[in-house]
Amino acid sequence: MTRLPPPSSKRVLSDLRELRKLTEDARGAQRVAWGPTWRKARDWFVKKAENEAGLSVTRDSAGSLWASLPGRTKASVIVGSHLDSVPGGGWLDGCLGVLGGLEVMRRWALAGSPPPVTLHLVDWADEEGARFGRSLMGSAASAGTLNPKRELAHLVDRSGVKLPDALKENGIRLDRMKKAHQEFRALRAAAYLELHIEQGPVLESMKKNVGVVLGTMGVERHQLRFTGQAAHSGAAPLHLRQDAFLAAAAFAVACNELGLALSGKTPKTRVVATCGVVKVEPNFVTAVPGAAEISIDLRALDAKVLAKMLAGARKAAHIAAKKYRVSVSWSPLITITPRIFDETLTGFVKQAVKAVAGDAPELPSGPLHDASEMAGVVPTAMVFAQSSPGISHTRIEDSPGPALDQAIRAFLTAVDRTVEHVAQS
Amino acid sequence: MTRLPPPSSKRVLSDLRELRKLTEDARGAQRVAWGPTWRKARDWFVKKAENEAGLSVTRDSAGSLWASLPGRTKASVIVGSHLDSVPGGGWLDGCLGVLGGLEVMRRWALAGSPPPVTLHLVDWADEEGARFGRSLMGSAASAGTLNPKRELAHLVDRSGVKLPDALKENGIRLDRMKKAHQEFRALRAAAYLELHIEQGPVLESMKKNVGVVLGTMGVERHQLRFTGQAAHSGAAPLHLRQDAFLAAAAFAVACNELGLALSGKTPKTRVVATCGVVKVEPNFVTAVPGAAEISIDLRALDAKVLAKMLAGARKAAHIAAKKYRVSVSWSPLITITPRIFDETLTGFVKQAVKAVAGDAPELPSGPLHDASEMAGVVPTAMVFAQSSPGISHTRIEDSPGPALDQAIRAFLTAVDRTVEHVAQS
Repeated sequence: MTRLPPPSSKRVLSDLRELRKLTEDARGAQRVAWGPTWRKARDWFVKKAENEAGLSVTRDSAGSLWASLPGRTKASVIVGSHLDSVPGGGWLDGCLGVLGGLEVMRRWALAGSPPPVTLHLVDWADEEGARFGRSLMGSAASAGTLNPKRELAHLVDRSGVKLPDALKENGIRLDRMKKAHQEFRALRAAAYLELHIEQGPVLESMKKNVGVVLGTMGVERHQLRFTGQAAHSGAAPLHLRQDAFLAAAAFAVACNELGLALSGKTPKTRVVATCGVVKVEPNFVTAVPGAAEISIDLRALDAKVLAKMLAGARKAAHIAAKKYRVSVSWSPLITITPRIFDETLTGFVKQAVKAVAGDAPELPSGPLHDASEMAGVVPTAMVFAQSSPGISHTRIEDSPGPALDQAIRAFLTAVDRTVEHVAQS
Repeated sequence: MTRLPPPSSKRVLSDLRELRKLTEDARGAQRVAWGPTWRKARDWFVKKAENEAGLSVTRDSAGSLWASLPGRTKASVIVGSHLDSVPGGGWLDGCLGVLGGLEVMRRWALAGSPPPVTLHLVDWADEEGARFGRSLMGSAASAGTLNPKRELAHLVDRSGVKLPDALKENGIRLDRMKKAHQEFRALRAAAYLELHIEQGPVLESMKKNVGVVLGTMGVERHQLRFTGQAAHSGAAPLHLRQDAFLAAAAFAVACNELGLALSGKTPKTRVVATCGVVKVEPNFVTAVPGAAEISIDLRALDAKVLAKMLAGARKAAHIAAKKYRVSVSWSPLITITPRIFDETLTGFVKQAVKAVAGDAPELPSGPLHDASEMAGVVPTAMVFAQSSPGISHTRIEDSPGPALDQAIRAFLTAVDRTVEHVAQS
């Protein structure tokens, strides 16, 4: 068996700092997909992949970059994540997984002999959906779950640019994006592994540096509109009011209680419920709100629990509407099935995390990842590095040095084991 | 004693319809103070006052119009309200009181002999504050409670016009507005009576056409800001969140409960609490709100009850902030003392309403009126006509025919009794 250099985080961390310098301004990372800073980041990445690991880089029909190292068989293992960021984002979200993946390739290049299976490093196009609102664009195209005509053709950014025009500017044709799925199938992928920061406070609160990701939670996202009757704040007695905001407020409080009640004690069994958008009308200090719009975003790893949450939220909305003598209507925004990761690969991740970090805490991911799309078409697993502070999509996103070091080494170790496993099967 | 014609609503209703035709468009009444449609309404009113009642009309230094009928003594009784409306307002709010007052004058003019006391009919300037945000402008100037330099000099409307310039366009000088108070004192007013629509659903819910107004409620209006920590709706577990909106929502629900608990069973002892303005940040479907602003408007006729409400709201905000691990800060918007109307005059109103409508239900006014300002400087009373629907500041504002008829006749009867009383004292 080929002797690989021992897993090390050194080059990955140095690359991350270099990319940060290249693509960050005073407000944070500016690698928004389809724009000039993103292209600059990709050019930098392509040169690195070619020069430091001798990879051949191609672009698929949906704009994702593939840096490949042919192995002794055509069956392949894919690693990667995304270089794009939200505007004013952090230095780790997405990049950590791409540059961690580059280190996988670099180690094999240094080993001097081809890997037993083919390795692909992917930089997915437009994971964030920051500019046009459709996230996971590249990975969804590869997984065959993207319908470009229906989902993308009409999208416009804040300055009025149409998505098809932004794609054209980057050499991508909307009517050919679907081809990315065939291109993906030609890769004969046997495994997909992704390294990412947690983006939340769970590992930090557990004092753990690295986590084993069980899957990505399913999502039920809806917009509710409570409709009552606007009235003068002085003239309308409380018992005769139809205050739409009070109904929305009671709904939000009830959904939080519902989430707490349905949450188990372990990260795996936790659920979340969030009212993020709130708008009242007429929104005057002297007006009883006649209408209130509120969004609800429910997430759980277990599809049955998620269904129970949605039923509970519907009941809560009904009770709140009745109590405050208003009506309520629901508009679905998005429904996403929970994605449970592959048992075998997750086992490899568990062993690797335990070996490197001493303990292998398991948790689901609340946010979606490209791995969510991959899990539908190929055995998939993920490694999380602790976030501290437990937030992302901001300039102050960060992870402690030891967490990054251990997460990178655990990821590299898990990939080694996966390559071995795929080669043997 | 002079024989007055019997009280009748006929001419008042006919005038109201004429004014409606003159100043309404498809969206409702457009008599916004200081604008052209308002001036048109006032020109129409001045001609009517001069031609139909032989009144001499003057304008005070704050822009209020005074149509006067000299009596056998200089001591005076004032009747009136305001011709200005909100944009897209109704046909009764304000106008009913001015044109009801005109009927007072017309009846004396038809009687052929001077009234025992001097009568003044006032059309207060800018009661609504719709364009610049400062309501009760004319009546506050007369009552001596307006500080034009501090309160008005900096005000600007939505199209950028400064209040001092809008005043100048109407021949009013901001630096002379304070003189209106001396001008008012020179009138030697002994009583102020105002007829108005209720603007709320109380009389309608009691199936009463006319109401006796006990006073205007005091107001405590504040803006609260709850500050927590924005986070990803998927990544942040419920027990680690600092959701600012949940605190605001719990506060709103608690203030409603508080209002219901402190409300007595009669209209007189009812209190109201309203959260009319709600704003969350960052206001994304996938973001736990990191900040939430919410307004609270508390009203009660009893100052002690109002103080108890404010204390209860402060406690509720504190409890909500603690529960959701956020902080809260308060900014005062406005504090208005309750105004209890004059006992003797309110007794006359009660008798008149009972005589005309068979029953004299008592209620406070939640909204402020010019009468609130007058109550501070002269014995004051008010008559309410039922609103149906129980809303105003909208094109669909209305009152049933019998309610308008009875309210106008009760008002005229109460004024007659007041004139008699002032003449005798």
